[in-house]
Amino acid sequence: SGVRERADELALRCSSFMAQPVTALSELRARQGDMKTQMELLIMETQAQVCQALAQLDRGANFSVDRWERKEGGGGISCVLQDGHVFEKAGVSISVVHGTLSEEAAKQMRNRGKVFKTKNGQLAFSAMGVSSVIHPKNPHAPTFHFNYRYFEVEEADGSKQWWFGGGCDLTPTYLNQEDAVHFHKTLKDACDQHDPSLYPKFKKWCDDYFIIKHRGERRGIGGIFFDDLDSPSKEDVFHFVQSCARAVVPSYIPLVQKHCNDPFTPQEKQWQQLRRGRYVEFNLLYDRGTKFGLLTPGSRIESILMSLPLTARWEYMHAPSKNSKEAEILEVLHHPKDWVH
Amino acid sequence: SGVRERADELALRCSSFMAQPVTALSELRARQGDMKTQMELLIMETQAQVCQALAQLDRGANFSVDRWERKEGGGGISCVLQDGHVFEKAGVSISVVHGTLSEEAAKQMRNRGKVFKTKNGQLAFSAMGVSSVIHPKNPHAPTFHFNYRYFEVEEADGSKQWWFGGGCDLTPTYLNQEDAVHFHKTLKDACDQHDPSLYPKFKKWCDDYFIIKHRGERRGIGGIFFDDLDSPSKEDVFHFVQSCARAVVPSYIPLVQKHCNDPFTPQEKQWQQLRRGRYVEFNLLYDRGTKFGLLTPGSRIESILMSLPLTARWEYMHAPSKNSKEAEILEVLHHPKDWVH
Repeated sequence: SGVRERADELALRCSSFMAQPVTALSELRARQGDMKTQMELLIMETQAQVCQALAQLDRGANFSVDRWERKEGGGGISCVLQDGHVFEKAGVSISVVHGTLSEEAAKQMRNRGKVFKTKNGQLAFSAMGVSSVIHPKNPHAPTFHFNYRYFEVEEADGSKQWWFGGGCDLTPTYLNQEDAVHFHKTLKDACDQHDPSLYPKFKKWCDDYFIIKHRGERRGIGGIFFDDLDSPSKEDVFHFVQSCARAVVPSYIPLVQKHCNDPFTPQEKQWQQLRRGRYVEFNLLYDRGTKFGLLTPGSRIESILMSLPLTARWEYMHAPSKNSKEAEILEVLHHPKDWVH
Repeated sequence: SGVRERADELALRCSSFMAQPVTALSELRARQGDMKTQMELLIMETQAQVCQALAQLDRGANFSVDRWERKEGGGGISCVLQDGHVFEKAGVSISVVHGTLSEEAAKQMRNRGKVFKTKNGQLAFSAMGVSSVIHPKNPHAPTFHFNYRYFEVEEADGSKQWWFGGGCDLTPTYLNQEDAVHFHKTLKDACDQHDPSLYPKFKKWCDDYFIIKHRGERRGIGGIFFDDLDSPSKEDVFHFVQSCARAVVPSYIPLVQKHCNDPFTPQEKQWQQLRRGRYVEFNLLYDRGTKFGLLTPGSRIESILMSLPLTARWEYMHAPSKNSKEAEILEVLHHPKDWVH
């Protein structure tokens, strides 16, 4: 009856999700202690929490919920709110996939230093994650992105490698010091619960990753970013990722709440559109996840490109005037700041 | 006095250009028979003709003319008309550069099958070209792109390799059969003056090149595309490229003239914006010139990205209804047609 209770608890937990998990309930029940189960439940829970918070803020807007299957194994659930009251476009997607690692994917991992024992070059893998990009309408409310994921690769001799990756970052159109501090402070608190060395390391990693190289500028004011995290233990890293995932709503939602009714000028809206253009440049030219997804056969294009804004703009030779609010944010994008010390 | 006459002829020719050529007049005079001189004059002439035709159509709009220098050798002239009466954004840029081939560039050429004799891995090169993207405002007037270029590489033993490349292609928001036939017919006529085998070969090359792979659709209804063209002779290929360059205005300008005052609905404008989004996807993800330019140190980012539209849009899961005008163009983008037989 202990098992039965846990089963009911699982059904109850799933009842708050945006859709039934990709993995059948019976299978999740059968392997409750497994990290794959724990992580699938965490990403489902995160998706539901974020969507609920966004829908509430958008005065009850409805998310379109698409459940899709991947021919090669697994599937996903994409939740998108488009052209709402507060949000121009907000996508929160989970995917739970498994199968054989593509040549491309294995190569990318080896380039990051991983060593795999293969047989006939084949590697079984299991991957799951939640990923989201949120573009509010008001130019004073920042754009936000987060992604948390878990990976397992099974080698030829049956041994398994696993790691977690993820992060979140903020892309304001205009700089608001208070917002930047709130955002980074919330992330730091989540990290510090586990190890005080994590936030500084992952903050720097984020600043180094989200660079629009050809412009010599960052995409936004950063946050945290990490990959290949596999120590001290699976449970420890999971708990760290759980803290990060639970920090998503408190780090971001108050900022939109605060600014979604701010007055703005057509010039401010136009500057937001130009920054959206830069967001597109980063995502299509440099983002590993996007590039990898687009090159992977059988991937769901609409879920990958839901990260793109509804609208964007490119002006030839646009340059903000000196000492303007537009120049202020550009300065920070060229020289990242320390927000919490 | 024959030399003096030719010199004056040269000065007269230059007087119609958008700016003084990148190469000093004295140097152009000194090597009048050289292909580099002939090609630089052709690209300057093409830039001037196209800009003049565009400005006239846009009721006297002014082009911004930027002359820029490349620290590593050479420079360029970028002419851009932005937010005009008829054109949302029209850029016509020339560049004349020389120096040492970057590792990246040499690799890209070797991948296309070229073999170079190097000393210490160094290769001197000279490259010049004209390149343009034109986005009209009216959704019934098509977007247009063209590029013609000449390349020389000097090997370690002093011997030179040379080739021409280029092409042009049309990207309508809505299909207009008559326009498509006019466009392809004009290109075919230009090609047929030189060899009847050229148009079919370069039309197919164009259909194969301008593919948005992850969407499984072409960027537009094609045109012509070629690269590494080095036979039968330098003069022959130059004359072919000259015919192509002179076909730019007659192939495209009449189409904008015809449609720039067409009535259109907000829905048609929105469909144009979605197609602009696809244009951005192709240019940032697949276009060789753009990717190559962005990766090349010292390149002028604003001139490379002037190809991006002023505005673009991405909707999650947008799909035109069956038998609509939007579905009609998508069908052609999935299955290229033969327009001139």
